[in-house]
Amino acid sequence: MSKADKTKELIIERTAGIFNTKGFLGTSLTDMSDVTGLTKGSIYGNFKNKDEVAIEAFKFNVQTMNQLFSSEIAKRTTFRGKLLVYSEVVSDFSETKFPRGGCPILNTAVESDDTHPELKHKAQQALLGWKDKIVVMLVSGIKEGEFKAGQNPEQIACTILALLEGAIMIRKLTDNQEYIRLIMKSLKDYIKQL
Amino acid sequence: MSKADKTKELIIERTAGIFNTKGFLGTSLTDMSDVTGLTKGSIYGNFKNKDEVAIEAFKFNVQTMNQLFSSEIAKRTTFRGKLLVYSEVVSDFSETKFPRGGCPILNTAVESDDTHPELKHKAQQALLGWKDKIVVMLVSGIKEGEFKAGQNPEQIACTILALLEGAIMIRKLTDNQEYIRLIMKSLKDYIKQL
Repeated sequence: MSKADKTKELIIERTAGIFNTKGFLGTSLTDMSDVTGLTKGSIYGNFKNKDEVAIEAFKFNVQTMNQLFSSEIAKRTTFRGKLLVYSEVVSDFSETKFPRGGCPILNTAVESDDTHPELKHKAQQALLGWKDKIVVMLVSGIKEGEFKAGQNPEQIACTILALLEGAIMIRKLTDNQEYIRLIMKSLKDYIKQL
Repeated sequence: MSKADKTKELIIERTAGIFNTKGFLGTSLTDMSDVTGLTKGSIYGNFKNKDEVAIEAFKFNVQTMNQLFSSEIAKRTTFRGKLLVYSEVVSDFSETKFPRGGCPILNTAVESDDTHPELKHKAQQALLGWKDKIVVMLVSGIKEGEFKAGQNPEQIACTILALLEGAIMIRKLTDNQEYIRLIMKSLKDYIKQL
């Protein structure tokens, strides 16, 4: 890895938490400079503009979150067990290595909605990719007889994602871990009866 | 109503959609001036600062949303019927008179989280007030034998809210009405089996 690539990586890693906390509009070049210890000139020597850093930071945050789930999912041998990972990891939200600021898809969905089409598009791709992953697990689980036949995998995947994102939003707003725990209990029951 | 009060009301009503779309940070004084047809001086003759307008606009948006639900809830005679109003109104999201920009609690929860403590506090109050309303319906419905005994009203209320907010977030990001319809179908099934 070249020195320039290392600097780019450092900028992405260090600014990822700020973008996910303060949002695209709320993150200033000064914030980026403070957190990286680099001059503004050095940051803009490596990236065209704030947009470019924000998009890389978003991708980094999504990757961090995905790894949290996928490392645990890989250990499970049943499709039901794999789906239950989502409720377990999110129930344990505050203790986990979740990206600082919570779910980057939720944050970007709301903030970028009307202000930043490219970021919105990236968040769309991340959410739909996640949905498709869940659909594949459901289809495979139905095929192997783990889940009841005749269910709609699209509906179930969207419902699981809504419960996850809704729970993270409610925790973000109330700072109350109990609410996320209760909602994840409902998600667990939902997955168990599929 | 005095002329000053009417001007204040006009500013709140006209800016409510912008604050709920562009967010607190994304809304400029120029936006506020454009949408009201008033000079910046006139706006700041009626409000101390942008914060004050934003908080009133948030309250206005929450009230608009609450009225959508409560006018329909008042018509229903059973507690199950009252709860089902949430899934029906949100399933019909794009056609309804929902505040422009979607759910103000979701938007404010995510945007104000780390940047605007007072707005965050208002959104917290709105969400917890909504939860408490649902808890009261559940407790009354259990008491009257409409819902099964032994269920946890807090858990159910949080689960309903997570599905609603999660569904609105997913629609916001994907612009796909089908996803919200599927999730609201799951919410309907959930309420029916309580």
